[in-house]
Amino acid sequence: MVRGNMSMTFDEFQELIEKMYSRKDRERGSAATFLWLCEEVGELAAALREGTHEDLEAEFADVLAWLATLANVEGVNLSEALHKKYGAGCPGCGGMVCTCEEKP
Amino acid sequence: MVRGNMSMTFDEFQELIEKMYSRKDRERGSAATFLWLCEEVGELAAALREGTHEDLEAEFADVLAWLATLANVEGVNLSEALHKKYGAGCPGCGGMVCTCEEKP
Repeated sequence: MVRGNMSMTFDEFQELIEKMYSRKDRERGSAATFLWLCEEVGELAAALREGTHEDLEAEFADVLAWLATLANVEGVNLSEALHKKYGAGCPGCGGMVCTCEEKP
Repeated sequence: MVRGNMSMTFDEFQELIEKMYSRKDRERGSAATFLWLCEEVGELAAALREGTHEDLEAEFADVLAWLATLANVEGVNLSEALHKKYGAGCPGCGGMVCTCEEKP
């Protein structure tokens, strides 16, 4: 899965997390998985406030890992979800460079 | 960026979000961006509780969009962060299939 300098794909990451943790994830379910996600979001807040660059990298990775776990439990393909919502431009104004007055 | 059935890479998505929203993101800064991320995490909770599959896809996409925005503001490459933390196996037990007793 690691491909030198090439960027990981969302599918590769979801598959990695599926392989690594799926047994426990199925037993835990969505609500309990969401609690873990929120805990990691809190740790990301702490790293933003007073962490090193390495701390930040680790916390972004953990938030993504729990988000991928939750997507796996719910049967959502993250890449497809992103293409649908953002692949054709900003969901608000439709532009590839957003010109919305406020958040779409 | 859309490549038929191929999965999006984390770099492609960070670049898309950078191109689409970077002007506003730089002005907003990390703390305010984190608030938007948390709002979307809340909307994901609502979709888990009572949303359709399409609602779930849209909310996962929005959480990822704000996470990518925050990573862009902080200068974190998400793909690199994932490789470092999960590319060589579970951070707890080191296995490609986790055998930790509890969450690592």
